[in-house]
Amino acid sequence: MTHALAAPEWDISEWLNTAQPLQLSGLRGRVVVIHAFQMLCPGCVSHGIPQATEIHNTFASDDLVVVGLHSVFEHHAVMGPEALKVFVHEYHLQFPIGIDRPVPGSALPSTMRSLGLKGTPSLIVVDRQGVIRLHHFGRASDLGVGALLGRLLVEDAAPMAGVQAMSAQTHP
Amino acid sequence: MTHALAAPEWDISEWLNTAQPLQLSGLRGRVVVIHAFQMLCPGCVSHGIPQATEIHNTFASDDLVVVGLHSVFEHHAVMGPEALKVFVHEYHLQFPIGIDRPVPGSALPSTMRSLGLKGTPSLIVVDRQGVIRLHHFGRASDLGVGALLGRLLVEDAAPMAGVQAMSAQTHP
Amino acid sequence: MTHALAAPEWDISEWLNTAQPLQLSGLRGRVVVIHAFQMLCPGCVSHGIPQATEIHNTFASDDLVVVGLHSVFEHHAVMGPEALKVFVHEYHLQFPIGIDRPVPGSALPSTMRSLGLKGTPSLIVVDRQGVIRLHHFGRASDLGVGALLGRLLVEDAAPMAGVQAMSAQTHP
Amino acid sequence: MTHALAAPEWDISEWLNTAQPLQLSGLRGRVVVIHAFQMLCPGCVSHGIPQATEIHNTFASDDLVVVGLHSVFEHHAVMGPEALKVFVHEYHLQFPIGIDRPVPGSALPSTMRSLGLKGTPSLIVVDRQGVIRLHHFGRASDLGVGALLGRLLVEDAAPMAGVQAMSAQTHP
Repeated sequence: MTHALAAPEWDISEWLNTAQPLQLSGLRGRVVVIHAFQMLCPGCVSHGIPQATEIHNTFASDDLVVVGLHSVFEHHAVMGPEALKVFVHEYHLQFPIGIDRPVPGSALPSTMRSLGLKGTPSLIVVDRQGVIRLHHFGRASDLGVGALLGRLLVEDAAPMAGVQAMSAQTHP
Repeated sequence: MTHALAAPEWDISEWLNTAQPLQLSGLRGRVVVIHAFQMLCPGCVSHGIPQATEIHNTFASDDLVVVGLHSVFEHHAVMGPEALKVFVHEYHLQFPIGIDRPVPGSALPSTMRSLGLKGTPSLIVVDRQGVIRLHHFGRASDLGVGALLGRLLVEDAAPMAGVQAMSAQTHP
Repeated sequence: MTHALAAPEWDISEWLNTAQPLQLSGLRGRVVVIHAFQMLCPGCVSHGIPQATEIHNTFASDDLVVVGLHSVFEHHAVMGPEALKVFVHEYHLQFPIGIDRPVPGSALPSTMRSLGLKGTPSLIVVDRQGVIRLHHFGRASDLGVGALLGRLLVEDAAPMAGVQAMSAQTHP
Repeated sequence: MTHALAAPEWDISEWLNTAQPLQLSGLRGRVVVIHAFQMLCPGCVSHGIPQATEIHNTFASDDLVVVGLHSVFEHHAVMGPEALKVFVHEYHLQFPIGIDRPVPGSALPSTMRSLGLKGTPSLIVVDRQGVIRLHHFGRASDLGVGALLGRLLVEDAAPMAGVQAMSAQTHP
């Protein structure tokens, strides 16, 4: 028995850049990099999105997938799906992006709540078994993120107690 | 008699960051730096807006004013006044910004047409006598823009034939 | 039986930033990152040395060591040990640095030849078993280098045929 | 009668990148930009030298000259003329560079003392009449330096009392 923190399924109202909806549970066996952002968040535009793009360009494969998560928690009226589509077009984003489902009566969208995000940009890395291995708010170093991804990519997809014991740790 | 190209009056539907509407003609005697942008234009966000902000922080005074011009010529639905206000708030823009008035039946707004802008970002510099001295599309070097502003700031506000003869030149 | 390329022992005439000389063979069991540079090489100063410093700051531990290799192959007269010591002081370099031993009658120093370096900066990564896993000339991306180091750090120090079969591959 | 601070003549032991020695007094009528540096000073390499190079590329003409001043005040043994020549070659510096004459028994070279430099990098701007108009230690903004140069370039070379009254002011 372990206490690994399995990443909760995301709750998406609409997908961009993918022919069919993605399920996190359907990606078991692959490393999943979730970049949570808002299109009008300066730190996302200057740092988070370029990093997510470079991760996608460097690592996206049968073993790793980058998923954008548009988690709007402020200024909802001007960051709707139509605005996001223009943003994605103008910034040439290629990876799948899910719109975090709005919750009636709450500023915070559904997945932002279930993931416990503190704001944007946030970087969440989920290992092949669905366990959260990085939960980072703000700017993350390329070397540190790269090292984590390199480590996770060589881990076996089969359950490993040792790995699960490390789960839910925030990368230093 | 000279053939100086006087900058046309701008045509603004709404102002941000200023208690009262500005008229270009009312700024005669001051150097006016116009930064034309779109809030979802990557080059504007990465280069044009930081440069306009630094010009404002370095030079804004009784002698020089920086004015943003939001000239939306594409994706109009998602770059309206409410979206722009969020953008200005999130990027902490302090200088006056005028929304270039939409023209029914045309993608191009009014001032963009009268100024002959090729796109965004564009930098237009108007001297103390209302004559256009720089009309630049794309990235402009800080040293070059600084040199022009330094030159214009020491020019007398009174009509000078020699200066007018140089008018409407694009800065190299 | 494998065809793994074991990294050759380095040949150092003088060490900086370490109380005692290091032997590559003595570091078996640790990942070794070798940054080959020249103090008057612009690409080394602008990119290679900052990257080596960040690798040292991020990863140096009982499991990984960063070693600078000053491989002078041109302008020997002005990049001698005294000049290098000033450079190391001015740039606040903290990791051990070995001076690649000059070879009489040759422009290329000894380790540069045995490692087959094409120039500076070069990044060589040696795994826990002493096998070269990255042999890169020029600018290397932080994400890619990070991924390799993350992978090597979780590899066991004991001989693994599978790993050796991958040895001497240049990282993409 | 004015109290303008005329820049003192520089004292150079050797010139690079110029067929004949330059005299500051011989440049009267031109704006002179003096970039004082040391080849092993990190701030000079990362900021001062790129800025001097861009000033040279943007403005060098019959009206403006950029002059490097190698003012060595520490680690003299490893920043001699031969080392400097390699540095100038490796960094592709094109503008004339004078080696500030060493003073026996003093760490500070001759021109560094007469100009009252606080360290490197320093930027000194001399107007057409030989008056110091900027005396800046550390990083100077491109916009601010550009503005000063633009202003000085339109000033007449003939003596102007008003200008001299402004002399020796440090640019904000």
